[in-house]
Amino acid sequence: LSKMLHSDLLPKGSPEVTREFMSTLVTLLLNYVEMQNDRTSRVLEFRHPKQLEQIVDIDVPDEESPSNLYQILLDCQQALQYQVRSGHPRFFNQISTGLDMVSLAGEWLTATTNSNMFTYEVSPVFVLIEKAVLQKMRELVGWPTGDGIFAPGGSISTLYAIHLARHRKFPLCKTKGVYALTKRPIIFTSAHCHYSIPQAAAVMGLGTDSVVEIPVDEKGRMDIDKLEEQIMACLERGDEPMLINATCGTTVLGAFDPIMPIADLCEKYDIWLHADAAWGGGVLVSRKHRKLMNGIERANSVTWNPHKMLGAHLQCSAVLIREPNQLFSCNNMSADYLFQQDKHYNVEYDTGDKAIQCGRKNDVFKLWLMWRAKGTLGFERQVNGLFELRDHLVRRLNEFEDFELILPEPECTNVCFWYVPPSCANMVGNRRYERLGRITAIIKARMMDRGNLMVGYQPLDDRPNFFRMLFSNAASTNEDVDFMLEEIVRIGHEL
Amino acid sequence: LSKMLHSDLLPKGSPEVTREFMSTLVTLLLNYVEMQNDRTSRVLEFRHPKQLEQIVDIDVPDEESPSNLYQILLDCQQALQYQVRSGHPRFFNQISTGLDMVSLAGEWLTATTNSNMFTYEVSPVFVLIEKAVLQKMRELVGWPTGDGIFAPGGSISTLYAIHLARHRKFPLCKTKGVYALTKRPIIFTSAHCHYSIPQAAAVMGLGTDSVVEIPVDEKGRMDIDKLEEQIMACLERGDEPMLINATCGTTVLGAFDPIMPIADLCEKYDIWLHADAAWGGGVLVSRKHRKLMNGIERANSVTWNPHKMLGAHLQCSAVLIREPNQLFSCNNMSADYLFQQDKHYNVEYDTGDKAIQCGRKNDVFKLWLMWRAKGTLGFERQVNGLFELRDHLVRRLNEFEDFELILPEPECTNVCFWYVPPSCANMVGNRRYERLGRITAIIKARMMDRGNLMVGYQPLDDRPNFFRMLFSNAASTNEDVDFMLEEIVRIGHEL
Ligand SMILES: Cc1ncc(COP(=O)(O)O)c(C=O)c1O
Ligand SMILES: Cc1ncc(COP(=O)(O)O)c(C=O)c1O
Repeated sequence: LSKMLHSDLLPKGSPEVTREFMSTLVTLLLNYVEMQNDRTSRVLEFRHPKQLEQIVDIDVPDEESPSNLYQILLDCQQALQYQVRSGHPRFFNQISTGLDMVSLAGEWLTATTNSNMFTYEVSPVFVLIEKAVLQKMRELVGWPTGDGIFAPGGSISTLYAIHLARHRKFPLCKTKGVYALTKRPIIFTSAHCHYSIPQAAAVMGLGTDSVVEIPVDEKGRMDIDKLEEQIMACLERGDEPMLINATCGTTVLGAFDPIMPIADLCEKYDIWLHADAAWGGGVLVSRKHRKLMNGIERANSVTWNPHKMLGAHLQCSAVLIREPNQLFSCNNMSADYLFQQDKHYNVEYDTGDKAIQCGRKNDVFKLWLMWRAKGTLGFERQVNGLFELRDHLVRRLNEFEDFELILPEPECTNVCFWYVPPSCANMVGNRRYERLGRITAIIKARMMDRGNLMVGYQPLDDRPNFFRMLFSNAASTNEDVDFMLEEIVRIGHEL
Repeated sequence: LSKMLHSDLLPKGSPEVTREFMSTLVTLLLNYVEMQNDRTSRVLEFRHPKQLEQIVDIDVPDEESPSNLYQILLDCQQALQYQVRSGHPRFFNQISTGLDMVSLAGEWLTATTNSNMFTYEVSPVFVLIEKAVLQKMRELVGWPTGDGIFAPGGSISTLYAIHLARHRKFPLCKTKGVYALTKRPIIFTSAHCHYSIPQAAAVMGLGTDSVVEIPVDEKGRMDIDKLEEQIMACLERGDEPMLINATCGTTVLGAFDPIMPIADLCEKYDIWLHADAAWGGGVLVSRKHRKLMNGIERANSVTWNPHKMLGAHLQCSAVLIREPNQLFSCNNMSADYLFQQDKHYNVEYDTGDKAIQCGRKNDVFKLWLMWRAKGTLGFERQVNGLFELRDHLVRRLNEFEDFELILPEPECTNVCFWYVPPSCANMVGNRRYERLGRITAIIKARMMDRGNLMVGYQPLDDRPNFFRMLFSNAASTNEDVDFMLEEIVRIGHEL
């Protein structure tokens, strides 16, 4: 391969060189997969940006003598060496973690087909698959029919939902814009909601001020009395209560806003109910844990990211709509070059005109392939396993005095805590928490230098930095949880 | 593999079973790649939706006994069998075609790392690579510095640009919304622009009526006099001319709006100039053809989709901004859980807070790997080759009387034409074109049944359906162009 150039690959080159090049790459990739699953291997090899810029050669070349195929494989090796192993059983840093092999197989196939999802004409099987998977997800929400689409991430899925809610209440907005609205639409959401809610309001020309954040209770759930107060205040101001967003599984604390009372208010005041279950939606596959989302069938729309709790690869996010044929009337632009109406097949299968994108990635095949491999019952076992890991961690945290739990009974698989070094054991009040906050950031830095573990931290409301442990990786075990605690204590004692 | 289940794969199962499963899959995928490059193989095996639903088993299973690994490979085989081969040298149906092997290698690696682009912390090398590639693309536009981001497709890239233009002219809009605008912002674009422009206006709460479509000349380019007329009319109405979109490579005719005169008007009236070069941006790598975008350096923002003319895999689209540090102030929401400011590394490298997404796919690595393999000069040769194919087709169309060219001298690699069957040879006027339009759809249907070729068609303005041939596949040759003409004539004579 060291003598071979890009032009020796298909289409101009030969199948043999292509096979050799791709097989050698696959060996590299499978080694990377095996290494990630080896607990003695590092989660990351941290380098500061300036340092890394010296170590890695990422120059984008102009000159004619491009790298030969051997150099390309070295480029791949280099990228793998310094990439953070988000599939490692001790990577707890983000909500999306893990490396499901069937999902990976689905992604490799998707890439090989280079398939675009906007018409049946170019991706017949994948369009049928998307239809079937969206239907299964709606059934799990509790809807017999409805609409939906896979979108590039939960933030865009939620943008779709709020855009649709505005279209239903103010259909003229599509052509005339927000000026045509007689009243200002207001969005109600939890103070702990994901920032994609105000982000959508900014993009949609409503402004972040149109988002009213409702305080949360001590469990991090939206306070329903305060919610009704704000709805009434909104009506008194002459504004229009347009949408309530119930966060099902908040990003940090993992709280579930109570859907039933929120749905009652939505019916009472004729407000669109969106459920941001980007994270918590995974509980719907578990008969044991889906009660956390009791009443979800009363929502008008739901964001659900299988690339979070179900362990599908990035990106895999769906927005589900209770009523059928909603997205088309909201988003269609009827471009003749793509959505010809005189095609020789039933153009109802051309989903492109209900999207706010034109070209759209095939994000569904990998999820379908996982579903074929596990069945809903397999996903249920996987999700139940994550909750068992959470329970194990909560038990251990209660045994250790070096730690202080933020929420004694977390709802989702998030577990938030402070590490309390001996030096702070008998401190009290602000001084104590301020110090715990600073220590959290220092421990995280040390953790990344040692490279055996990655756990995220953040401040929240008046609480200084604290660790947020989070289970979404099917590979993690109780030993990994115990290792996490011991590693933090080790680092803590070094300080 | 027929006795093995999902649980026999990593992480719970063994490396051996994993290796066997993934290697068998890779064999399937490489066979698919080789088949696509064999001109005697079909471009597609068309089935009507109802028919395909009977043939393929796409059930999403609940029950416990999930398919074994052999069945999963059969599921993959089935998907490949009926998928349209967009990498086939005779697939001319969409703007994104082809299958570049180095790009495929990049996608397989990206999937294996399952990398999220929102912070340096989790994707250090890929974040540095995105920075380097965006810089290279800006240099080709003619900007020494600037800003930019990879987005999920050209439509979202253009949404970023228009959202930023609004932010620059009406910074209060981010918090107060469109109501706070003293004047209505108006967007000017060509009547042949891509529908993502009105789509963005609808999503952003400006309304499609805020988009003023300017008539085009006989070459399909925006009429500059009419543009100035509309700007003055807008000012007279008391509206605010906010943005002019110059389409560099229109979707159907491949026309390039003249940037220089448009840039003059932008400077004269202080209007943001966006260039939608999603399709035509590829010419920037070619010293011979970049003159089609003369003056591009005067734009404020550019949309460029390497997943079109440069042949990168879907999705690969960037929005480039002339001035640095623009996207952050427009889009940041400063979520503490992700963009902590007390990290132990330089948080300037955390690009997530300038995005309108939260999680963001790694769309850049495959493009970087292609650039490493070819160099800009390799891309130049590739793009020049596409224009040579276009010239070959135009020459052949002028030789055949069975065809009628829509534009005698196309600007981009789009070639639009009617097939004129003997029965219409001496027809004239509307009757003739109406019949040509109907025949086009019939020929396309036959073409898909025969499965050896796929060429798109569409009506445009007052012209009925006509074929749009389009070169973006580096695998196509003059023989494929000749085959296309012969195949259409064969089908035409059967009618
Ligand atoms: C001129 C033009 N702009 C924008 C787009 C939208 O790009 P995407 O399909 O990546 O959203 C297209 C797609 O064909 C196009 O031709
Ligand atoms: C509750 C919640 N909603 C939405 C999102 C956004 O999802 P994405 O990152 O796919 O845009 C997240 C991401 O962490 C989340 O936790």
